[in-house]
Amino acid sequence: MIRHCQLCGSNASLTVPLGDSLPRHVCDSCGHIHYENPRLIVGCIAEWEGHILLCRRAIEPQRGLWTLPAGFMENGESAAQGASRETFEESGAKVLIDAPFAMISIAHINQVHLFYRGRLNSPDYRAGEESLEVALLPPENIPWQDIAFRSVTFCLKQYLADRSESHFGFHEMELLPL
Amino acid sequence: MIRHCQLCGSNASLTVPLGDSLPRHVCDSCGHIHYENPRLIVGCIAEWEGHILLCRRAIEPQRGLWTLPAGFMENGESAAQGASRETFEESGAKVLIDAPFAMISIAHINQVHLFYRGRLNSPDYRAGEESLEVALLPPENIPWQDIAFRSVTFCLKQYLADRSESHFGFHEMELLPL
Repeated sequence: MIRHCQLCGSNASLTVPLGDSLPRHVCDSCGHIHYENPRLIVGCIAEWEGHILLCRRAIEPQRGLWTLPAGFMENGESAAQGASRETFEESGAKVLIDAPFAMISIAHINQVHLFYRGRLNSPDYRAGEESLEVALLPPENIPWQDIAFRSVTFCLKQYLADRSESHFGFHEMELLPL
Repeated sequence: MIRHCQLCGSNASLTVPLGDSLPRHVCDSCGHIHYENPRLIVGCIAEWEGHILLCRRAIEPQRGLWTLPAGFMENGESAAQGASRETFEESGAKVLIDAPFAMISIAHINQVHLFYRGRLNSPDYRAGEESLEVALLPPENIPWQDIAFRSVTFCLKQYLADRSESHFGFHEMELLPL
C-alpha cells in the first residue's frame, strides 16, 4: 500500500491522473505518479536423464511443499537469465535453458509465471537457502499432492504430456481464484 | 528513484537486506523493503484479410513513428486481457486473441515485451488518444524505416516469415543496447 511519495515523502492519494483511466497513487505535493504493475516470476523445469529437478520450500508461502525453482525476475536481467539464476540459487544446479515452455497469468495476485524448459549440465545440486531439500525425481515419484502452486502442477503435467509425444510446445493459461 | 518510504515517508537507503543478494531501497525507520522489478509490455499483432493493424504514435517516446498496439500490463488483468485492452485503447479495434507469439527481454530498460497474434472482429478502428493514426496495412506497405521500436520490427518480420510458411511458433529474443 502506497501512502507516501517515494520522491518527496509527502502524502500520496489514490486518484485518476489526467489522461489516464485507472486510479493511481499520486503525490499531493510534487504530483509524482506511482504506477504498480504485475510482477514476473521466472523459473525452470529442468531434466537430468529423464528425472525432473524439484525443490522443497524452506520459506512461506507453502513451506514444506514441492516446487519448480522460480522467483521474481530482477531488473537488469533477461527472463531466461532470471530463470537460470533462480534455479541455481534454489537448487545449486547449473542449467542449459532450451526454450520458454509455459506462461500462467494469475490476475488476482498480479503475477505472471513464466517457466523455461532446460537441462542440467551435470547431476550436481544442493539445497539453497530457500529450499529444505532438492531432488531429481522420475515422473512416477512426483509428489502431486504436495505441490506448492497450481502453476507448477500445470507446468509439470503439460511437460510430461509433451514429453510423451516427443514434441514440446509453448503453453499459456490463466488461473482464477479457488 | 526511491528516496522515501512509501509506507511511512521516512528516508530510504540503498542497502542489501539480510538474506538478500541485491541492494534494495530499505526504509531507515520502519524497515520496509521496496522491490523494483521489470515491467511487462503487452500488445497484439492483429490481422484483417491479410492486412496488419499498425498505429502511429501520438506520444513520446518515438512520436510519429509506427508501432503495434501495446502498453504496460495492469494489475488485475491477464497478459492476454492486457493485450486486448491496449489494442482497443490505441486503435479502437476489437480483436480475438489467438496465441502468444513473441517475447522480447530488454534487460537494460527493465522491460519484457509480449506480443500475441490475433484477428480483428471487423475492419473497424479509429485512432485512440495515444495514436495519430491507425491503419490496416498489407505487408508491402509496412513502413520499415519508420517503426518505433526494435521489438516491433522483430515481431513483424517473424510474423510475416511464419505466415509465409503457414505455421506460427512462439519466438523469444533478447535486445541489447544499440
